[in-house]
Amino acid sequence: MEILILVTGGTFDKEYNELTGELFFKDSHVSEMLKLGRNLVKTTVHTLMMKDSLNMTDADRRLISTFCAESKQEHIIITHGTDTMADTARYLSKEIPGKTIIITGAMVPYKFGSSDGFFNLGSAMAFVQTLPKGVYIAMNGKYFHAANVRKNKENGVFEEL
Amino acid sequence: MEILILVTGGTFDKEYNELTGELFFKDSHVSEMLKLGRNLVKTTVHTLMMKDSLNMTDADRRLISTFCAESKQEHIIITHGTDTMADTARYLSKEIPGKTIIITGAMVPYKFGSSDGFFNLGSAMAFVQTLPKGVYIAMNGKYFHAANVRKNKENGVFEEL
Amino acid sequence: MEILILVTGGTFDKEYNELTGELFFKDSHVSEMLKLGRNLVKTTVHTLMMKDSLNMTDADRRLISTFCAESKQEHIIITHGTDTMADTARYLSKEIPGKTIIITGAMVPYKFGSSDGFFNLGSAMAFVQTLPKGVYIAMNGKYFHAANVRKNKENGVFEEL
Amino acid sequence: MEILILVTGGTFDKEYNELTGELFFKDSHVSEMLKLGRNLVKTTVHTLMMKDSLNMTDADRRLISTFCAESKQEHIIITHGTDTMADTARYLSKEIPGKTIIITGAMVPYKFGSSDGFFNLGSAMAFVQTLPKGVYIAMNGKYFHAANVRKNKENGVFEEL
Repeated sequence: MEILILVTGGTFDKEYNELTGELFFKDSHVSEMLKLGRNLVKTTVHTLMMKDSLNMTDADRRLISTFCAESKQEHIIITHGTDTMADTARYLSKEIPGKTIIITGAMVPYKFGSSDGFFNLGSAMAFVQTLPKGVYIAMNGKYFHAANVRKNKENGVFEEL
Repeated sequence: MEILILVTGGTFDKEYNELTGELFFKDSHVSEMLKLGRNLVKTTVHTLMMKDSLNMTDADRRLISTFCAESKQEHIIITHGTDTMADTARYLSKEIPGKTIIITGAMVPYKFGSSDGFFNLGSAMAFVQTLPKGVYIAMNGKYFHAANVRKNKENGVFEEL
Repeated sequence: MEILILVTGGTFDKEYNELTGELFFKDSHVSEMLKLGRNLVKTTVHTLMMKDSLNMTDADRRLISTFCAESKQEHIIITHGTDTMADTARYLSKEIPGKTIIITGAMVPYKFGSSDGFFNLGSAMAFVQTLPKGVYIAMNGKYFHAANVRKNKENGVFEEL
Repeated sequence: MEILILVTGGTFDKEYNELTGELFFKDSHVSEMLKLGRNLVKTTVHTLMMKDSLNMTDADRRLISTFCAESKQEHIIITHGTDTMADTARYLSKEIPGKTIIITGAMVPYKFGSSDGFFNLGSAMAFVQTLPKGVYIAMNGKYFHAANVRKNKENGVFEEL
């Protein structure tokens, strides 16, 4: 089994610009995290885009969907901003019936030293190997079916509908 | 579903004694790690012992087994030193038929800032929710059946027999 | 010799709000940093304000000046945002003739795990014990006299006029 | 002013061997720390040896002394294990009269994420620029004259004789 990790941006990969004091995207940290986690599952990391998920358009979702459909791998992890993660999950669940896709992200950037992203990546790596075909969100140690999840904006937590 | 995390020691929880320069056990960091990972799966953490797994005796394994058998939870994660992790896995697989038990650990202490333990804990949390009844080792993003795993002492990596 | 550390805010103490994705002030991390550094110099930490230095007003500078003048300590470290740090240094150098005052800060928040603030705090602690009376800025391992320093906004570095 | 940083080993630079569980020396982290601290003082780092200071011999101290005497720089920081740091300080204070030498170290390895070494390096960088000629130990934010310092082995703290 080979895993494709598709990077699309989100808090996961944000960095701090020390001249402006703002957060921005540079490179993805996913490969560094896999190395730190001593991951030995065969994995290919591909950066498709680096976007704040609030700025993600329908065209972006089509691009993600097409990439997932055309990839040779049947087990895919997508890193994604949390704000519209549930929208992308629902979109993909209609378009990609025959693969196991786990969408994950973080509330705190990995580079800020206290990130939940590292824990989430570990659980996404396990869920993608064990869950049946379908599209899921993996956050906070839990997994949710694409059709049955939303982000609670008040406390930043994913929950069933 | 409620998860029991049973702490038994291992590199996972070692700390640095700044007066002697040696590694030692104080308290487990598992609860702190779950908080950092924003874990929301219902979880009980219990410290059963704090042992280097090279020092783990048959009596220790009986104690772990008895605790697993008598616990009300059917989904159990055990944190454990890597050196004899495969021995404990085999022992438990004979004694505890009806539960999903995931044994995990780390090559580097969590407190040393570059630990694989945080990633492993994330994957163990996912495997324990999704794998069928049985005893498994979860390391390096992978899982192994208790009957079919050993630690390769030369490179520190778990592999199938 | 007792050192007063006067906290006024700045990047040094900023944290990440995981619900809004913005940076904000909560509590100062200076005491935690002194503990991590195993500091044994007798030190009192006082949080006077928590401000982005771009928002610092003349009234704020008067408040800082009055507090320094009235404090019993003759050796004072001030943590301060870098953008107007040179302005505050010049203001204090006119108002407070008889004390050694070291103003320091950071380009990256301490909580982001890659902060220059910890290094700067160590050097400020040394400079405040060894420099003659006067007001100085300590950044990047260097010290500058209040009358002869500016922040180069293009590269984020302090330099002599 | 150019600073020479002479690396001799000590806890400062120890790393964790994940196969044996023991601490060992690989490369010095001083250059990485200077970069992290955004140090801009002109500095040359030279690794002379990588030794646990309990294993440091008279021949090693002669080597350090010769290197300090023959270096073109008049301001020198030495990183050194804490156990025999006071011995080396006394030795150098007799041999090297005309330079400012600051010996510093750490109780916890830099790589273990909670190191006092980064704070000490910041203070050493300041002390070396401001103290008069002589040999000093800089630890815990303080500085001590070579003739008047010892390590209290019970609490790991440097103190005056």
